[in-house]
Amino acid sequence: MSTPAGTANIGVVGMAVMGSNLARNLASREGNTVAVYNRSPERTRKLVSEHPEAGFVASESVDDFVASLAKPRTAIIMVQAGAGTDAVISELAERFEPGDIIVDGGNANFHDTIRREKDVSAKGIHFVGTGISGGEEGALNGPSIMPGGTAEAYKTLGPILASIAAVAEGEPCVTHIGTDGAGHFVKMVHNGIEYADMQLIAEAYDLLRTITKRSPAELAEVFTTWNSGDLESYLIEITAEVLKQVDAKTGKPFVDIVLDQAGAKGTGAWTVQNALDLGTPVGGIAEAVFARSVSSHPEQRSAVQATITSRPSVVEVDVDTFADDIRAALYASKVVAYAQGFDEIIAGAKQYGWDIDKGAVAKIWRAGCIIRAQFLNRIVEAYQNNPDITSLLEDPYFAAAVASGEEAWRRVVSTAALSGVPVPGFGSALSYYDSLASKRLPAALVQGQRDFFGAHTYKRVDEEGVFHTLWSGDRSEIATVPSTH
Amino acid sequence: MSTPAGTANIGVVGMAVMGSNLARNLASREGNTVAVYNRSPERTRKLVSEHPEAGFVASESVDDFVASLAKPRTAIIMVQAGAGTDAVISELAERFEPGDIIVDGGNANFHDTIRREKDVSAKGIHFVGTGISGGEEGALNGPSIMPGGTAEAYKTLGPILASIAAVAEGEPCVTHIGTDGAGHFVKMVHNGIEYADMQLIAEAYDLLRTITKRSPAELAEVFTTWNSGDLESYLIEITAEVLKQVDAKTGKPFVDIVLDQAGAKGTGAWTVQNALDLGTPVGGIAEAVFARSVSSHPEQRSAVQATITSRPSVVEVDVDTFADDIRAALYASKVVAYAQGFDEIIAGAKQYGWDIDKGAVAKIWRAGCIIRAQFLNRIVEAYQNNPDITSLLEDPYFAAAVASGEEAWRRVVSTAALSGVPVPGFGSALSYYDSLASKRLPAALVQGQRDFFGAHTYKRVDEEGVFHTLWSGDRSEIATVPSTH
Repeated sequence: MSTPAGTANIGVVGMAVMGSNLARNLASREGNTVAVYNRSPERTRKLVSEHPEAGFVASESVDDFVASLAKPRTAIIMVQAGAGTDAVISELAERFEPGDIIVDGGNANFHDTIRREKDVSAKGIHFVGTGISGGEEGALNGPSIMPGGTAEAYKTLGPILASIAAVAEGEPCVTHIGTDGAGHFVKMVHNGIEYADMQLIAEAYDLLRTITKRSPAELAEVFTTWNSGDLESYLIEITAEVLKQVDAKTGKPFVDIVLDQAGAKGTGAWTVQNALDLGTPVGGIAEAVFARSVSSHPEQRSAVQATITSRPSVVEVDVDTFADDIRAALYASKVVAYAQGFDEIIAGAKQYGWDIDKGAVAKIWRAGCIIRAQFLNRIVEAYQNNPDITSLLEDPYFAAAVASGEEAWRRVVSTAALSGVPVPGFGSALSYYDSLASKRLPAALVQGQRDFFGAHTYKRVDEEGVFHTLWSGDRSEIATVPSTH
Repeated sequence: MSTPAGTANIGVVGMAVMGSNLARNLASREGNTVAVYNRSPERTRKLVSEHPEAGFVASESVDDFVASLAKPRTAIIMVQAGAGTDAVISELAERFEPGDIIVDGGNANFHDTIRREKDVSAKGIHFVGTGISGGEEGALNGPSIMPGGTAEAYKTLGPILASIAAVAEGEPCVTHIGTDGAGHFVKMVHNGIEYADMQLIAEAYDLLRTITKRSPAELAEVFTTWNSGDLESYLIEITAEVLKQVDAKTGKPFVDIVLDQAGAKGTGAWTVQNALDLGTPVGGIAEAVFARSVSSHPEQRSAVQATITSRPSVVEVDVDTFADDIRAALYASKVVAYAQGFDEIIAGAKQYGWDIDKGAVAKIWRAGCIIRAQFLNRIVEAYQNNPDITSLLEDPYFAAAVASGEEAWRRVVSTAALSGVPVPGFGSALSYYDSLASKRLPAALVQGQRDFFGAHTYKRVDEEGVFHTLWSGDRSEIATVPSTH
């Protein structure tokens, strides 16, 4: 392979499926000349020979790859997150000059991105941790892109990313999220929301299947119908496709021959772990992550099932009315999941010093990514109407949407509980809503318990200050300072 | 203060409440001579002058403190977790000799304990991270103690800790949990269970209060009655005490004048974060942690409440029957919370290489600590009957207990959903149980979705191997290897 020096305006390192698809996407856009490099050159050779139309500038060494880039050099790393990414970053950072741009397009943990940005920027080189959502298909045809890093780097990088991004209502699905790790942070929350959304759809399916006793093919129709209303989204669309599928080997519905143990790649868990650091309740996301892990313990499931002698009968329902109830419950629970996700973004922005435009985030999720949905337009509008709302549930549209579905939502959670159908997502979302809606919470009792056993003190509803009751003494109250132990 | 050299068999560093109470406890036991030291000597002087009966050997410098200890030197650090602990460890480690024992009795994160044990043991000095539960009262009169570290260190340390521990049915509440961080790990899970237990009690109270409309004083009676049955526990006992309390300033029930925003010290969040690392579902603990954080966002609560025009009417119930239902729901949910906590202990033991005796852990929690309860005897028995059960719910006693309360549990969750009372703990526990009990989970649909959008592959129920459907192609199935991206 020949390597003309300084001719490529953009390079991609890592020629696995995501990297090569992204490189092909870049090459297909007017004005881009794309340098490509992979540690083992076979992959690069294969890509170049299969896609002569791309005009790739291919290299078989890092030195040649770096030499092939026009200045300021801009390279996107698409290798497995972790040590591999660190290795490539250091190879590039050794050869790049101040003003050049290293982009990490993998699924990095944003804490790593903050650390890497600090290291790389000390050399005057820009480091842009970038979330890229949409899987292999999105990488090739237009993903949703969430870059962090400096505003200066975004001046060079932004137009290149805009050229390959998905387009929603005429706008490319890319925006400068914020400095250092902001892009990977928002991508993480995106994935957490995706977990919740998928779990809620799975619960809706399970309820319809178990309680209304419809077949997967019939339920495919239900989801197809739902996809033309306010639930319109990619995940609802593919749910219908999956339910429609018939297994060729057995003639059975595809969903019935798939082992019911869900896998996970870790970003859902990160979302919850970080929410716990931030003090942001994200029960919907947590329950979704845990639902996958419950499913993946078959030995535990069968051991517990062996002890069970009877299961509850399912509650009798009017099939069409109950399906409508489930649709309403799904929508209300989905609003809660997104409200929790955006809460985490707001809390993260505050904690890590990012100026994140929530409406812009909702906008770039409208196409290219897995959670793309009509619904996101309502979130865009909510933050346009009032960027300072403390919760999406405070927005008049969402408040009204939840209120109109509320009775149905309650009926669904109640029916599920009586019928023995697990609804960790629907139930958690309803309890979250009821917690916000309750004038008084039993947290007051918890504070009383904590003061009793640990002298953790409490505040009063009618007076400023911090108090402790002498529970082991005469049970009088004293004003105090908060305990630190 | 004079400092006789080499006379104390045990020392305590850190004379805040926990440290001084532990030192007094140690001094009160036959055979112990207790050295004490605090960075600022005022605290030490105050303790010594207030408690001449203790015969403390007090020092005002680290050198004197170390000199005052008999060999092998054994010192318990009781300072704030974090950097303060590291500083004291390094001061002692510089002066201690091989074979001496440094004990960290604070609420350290077990990851820190693993790191510290590695550093300190490199010098031949033992490092024993030790969970101590029971608050100030427990430290003084008998805590539940969870030491990690080496078996060799436990030979010296064990008898000293046994002398001050709480006693349950004739046995001291201390056992060697496992090596390095095992003690702090188990203490963390203890605290996570404590969060869940408190949240479940709070939900029971909230339901009783809102739906049966009984007063706090009447509910104190209910909890007192419950405390003589299978719910008998310290937390139920103090709940009755808190509900009985009348505020002197206003004449109102105490629980009504306490601000309903619950605080947290972080160990509950750690428990959930670690469970996510381990792939162990602990929804009951997560919902309890999140319930506290929802309560602590007053601006969000009032903003959402401002949009709400009507709240559901509470379902009419027979008061006594419903109170019995709640008792059953509380017990079943509590079984789930403990099952999840013990799952995390089992998973942690496997991950970090600890040989943890689950029955012994349940035993030492029977007295001294916050979650002490009759109930723990049932857990001891469950692991005596079969140490290899995959879940407490598999144990015949617990399986029968949950089965007998199951219908009531379902009625309570259903009634709460219809009445607008948040039950994140009860609801999550019931969904967890129903997930384990379901022959098929909708995780199969989730796997179908993941294969559709990300080629994440799936397994089949009827054939070994890993498969992918060509969703964008002719939708035929191919055998494959799991995707790594």
